[in-house]
Amino acid sequence: MAFGWIDEQAEARRRAGLVRTLRPRPARSPLLDLASNDYLGLARHPEVTEGAAEAARTWGGGATGSRLVTGTTELHGELERELADFCGFESALVLSSGYAANLAAVTALAPFGSLVVSDAGNHASLIDGCRLARGTTQVVPHADPDAVRKALGTHDGPAVTVSDTVFSVDGDAAPLAGLARACREHGAGLIVDDAHGLGVLGDGGRGAPHAAGLAGDPDVVVTVTLSKSLGSQGGAVLGPAAVIDHLVNAARTFIFDTGLAPAAAGAALAALRLLRREPGRAARAREVATALHTRLTAEGLSAVRPDAAVVSVRAPSPERAVRWAADCREAGLAVGCFRPPSVPDGVSRLRLTARADLTEEQIEHAVDVISRNR
Amino acid sequence: MAFGWIDEQAEARRRAGLVRTLRPRPARSPLLDLASNDYLGLARHPEVTEGAAEAARTWGGGATGSRLVTGTTELHGELERELADFCGFESALVLSSGYAANLAAVTALAPFGSLVVSDAGNHASLIDGCRLARGTTQVVPHADPDAVRKALGTHDGPAVTVSDTVFSVDGDAAPLAGLARACREHGAGLIVDDAHGLGVLGDGGRGAPHAAGLAGDPDVVVTVTLSKSLGSQGGAVLGPAAVIDHLVNAARTFIFDTGLAPAAAGAALAALRLLRREPGRAARAREVATALHTRLTAEGLSAVRPDAAVVSVRAPSPERAVRWAADCREAGLAVGCFRPPSVPDGVSRLRLTARADLTEEQIEHAVDVISRNR
Repeated sequence: MAFGWIDEQAEARRRAGLVRTLRPRPARSPLLDLASNDYLGLARHPEVTEGAAEAARTWGGGATGSRLVTGTTELHGELERELADFCGFESALVLSSGYAANLAAVTALAPFGSLVVSDAGNHASLIDGCRLARGTTQVVPHADPDAVRKALGTHDGPAVTVSDTVFSVDGDAAPLAGLARACREHGAGLIVDDAHGLGVLGDGGRGAPHAAGLAGDPDVVVTVTLSKSLGSQGGAVLGPAAVIDHLVNAARTFIFDTGLAPAAAGAALAALRLLRREPGRAARAREVATALHTRLTAEGLSAVRPDAAVVSVRAPSPERAVRWAADCREAGLAVGCFRPPSVPDGVSRLRLTARADLTEEQIEHAVDVISRNR
Repeated sequence: MAFGWIDEQAEARRRAGLVRTLRPRPARSPLLDLASNDYLGLARHPEVTEGAAEAARTWGGGATGSRLVTGTTELHGELERELADFCGFESALVLSSGYAANLAAVTALAPFGSLVVSDAGNHASLIDGCRLARGTTQVVPHADPDAVRKALGTHDGPAVTVSDTVFSVDGDAAPLAGLARACREHGAGLIVDDAHGLGVLGDGGRGAPHAAGLAGDPDVVVTVTLSKSLGSQGGAVLGPAAVIDHLVNAARTFIFDTGLAPAAAGAALAALRLLRREPGRAARAREVATALHTRLTAEGLSAVRPDAAVVSVRAPSPERAVRWAADCREAGLAVGCFRPPSVPDGVSRLRLTARADLTEEQIEHAVDVISRNR
């Protein structure tokens, strides 16, 4: 049995309470959802689902090839233009996932001989980007511009700093202005993943880089996902046109992947237009997050102050976190449960997402269920 | 300018005739398509596009989270069961792309201390999987079971051999039976990417592993794409249930990525059911490929005998390949043009795909255009 060795790992996971299983959900779940990344509540919005349906009918079920061969439709071009314009960047490039976008940006912008300075709390996709890049990676303490400055000071030649803008696990924001200053002092580029910022932070949801005054900066490259606030699937890289051209020519996860399905591009475009028309959704998501945090803390729970729409509540152990989440589910509330190895510090958590479309009653009910089942 | 160094690379590409640009296509292209990977002509089939539209309406524009949190719908489960059953494997796991599926399979099945034996002609996504894996990779000559045997003989402990089943560039098939024998002799696993085999090879399009009698083998893991014969987007890993459970727990591109969009799952499922109902499409794609090859060769062109639906025609240089493809396009025919760095041997090619829905007249016309513009 060539794969017999995995049984031991499975047994170790069972003993540690770390077994993960898939739980398929029905189309209309009776649960109140505080677990998804559908921050603006757009995934089920009729304009978004119709955007997907219409795109599939017009353009087909798939893109049919690499973006460099037959996989670029006019719909992809339209989405890229509107996304770049909304976020304040010159150009955008859409990929099949945020994961692929991060691999593309980091690998293409960290050539042999370059330095990549990477925040210790970065998302797995940025870490894998660093691992795949030809440059040398130096991991620095979480959210620490001085550490970034110091790391950049040790290197001659091309360098980039890589960070999430909002960290997925604790929902805390990166010190973007400080990171940009450190990079500028050393002539380094800044690559930030705004997966959890787009649609939530910045003017009308234009994202964390926009809020930090970094939109359109020639030394800043931003990655985003279409699968969170925009309720679809896919990822994108935003930046100067020359950088985007470089990615078209050099990024393996762009060149060797099938283009994003038209339905996903259509859904994301519909969501983007909706957000433009209803910019208050972004502020509302932040309001809901603050309300959740305030009330959970008032109940004596240990929750991190949210900088965006993610509210993280600490649990005493992986087993207790799983049990807590299961009890909430039993009481009609879906919450995320993050355990090793999905947490950088080994601390298990309930992870709540503050959707813009939650009502006051739903917020109150959620806090009550979480607190009661602690 | 932090990214100033890319200008030099852009200039070098210009000098070498290797600049890539995106060419957005309209919804109804007047070109005859021999460039896409839509082997069965299903991407625009009304059942497939309606499968996408209906899934978006029922399930939403996106999966809303990681497959481990909210991103697994009953639709994903249904697709996984039907895909595994069709290809003859115990279990399947759907990911957001074939690229992600390859990264998942290789990294999760090549732990620290293991050996990965990788064919020199493998797809970029398998290569990146090897680079990300904790095991040590040994690259062996293309399609050479004896070289695989020799490499495996040097190693104690877990080992896997990794290969495409049909190589994307030349359309040649891997010696699957020989590879499986070499692996069996050494207790090694076999991971094969059937991206270009599913829907084209094997009984009714069940794929190359099925044709080679390897379906359901406990030591064989297969990856497929949903974006080629199935006309959608996404990828999947097929294998023993214990291996799939292992991936759910250990594969970073599964755990840390948003689940495949419902529309893509719905389109793939519709295509799969259509293929079950109309198994002749697979044989027809192979027939078209053979016809293209026979006639192109009769015209004196250097084309590789196709083992599946890809027909590769050699070009004398990158510039001539680009010019040739452009002239074909001018004459109403879309063909692929593969140049470095997308070709492992540095040889530029026209790459033709034999769609099952091409008519005799279209085949004849295509050969005429390609030959005339050589």
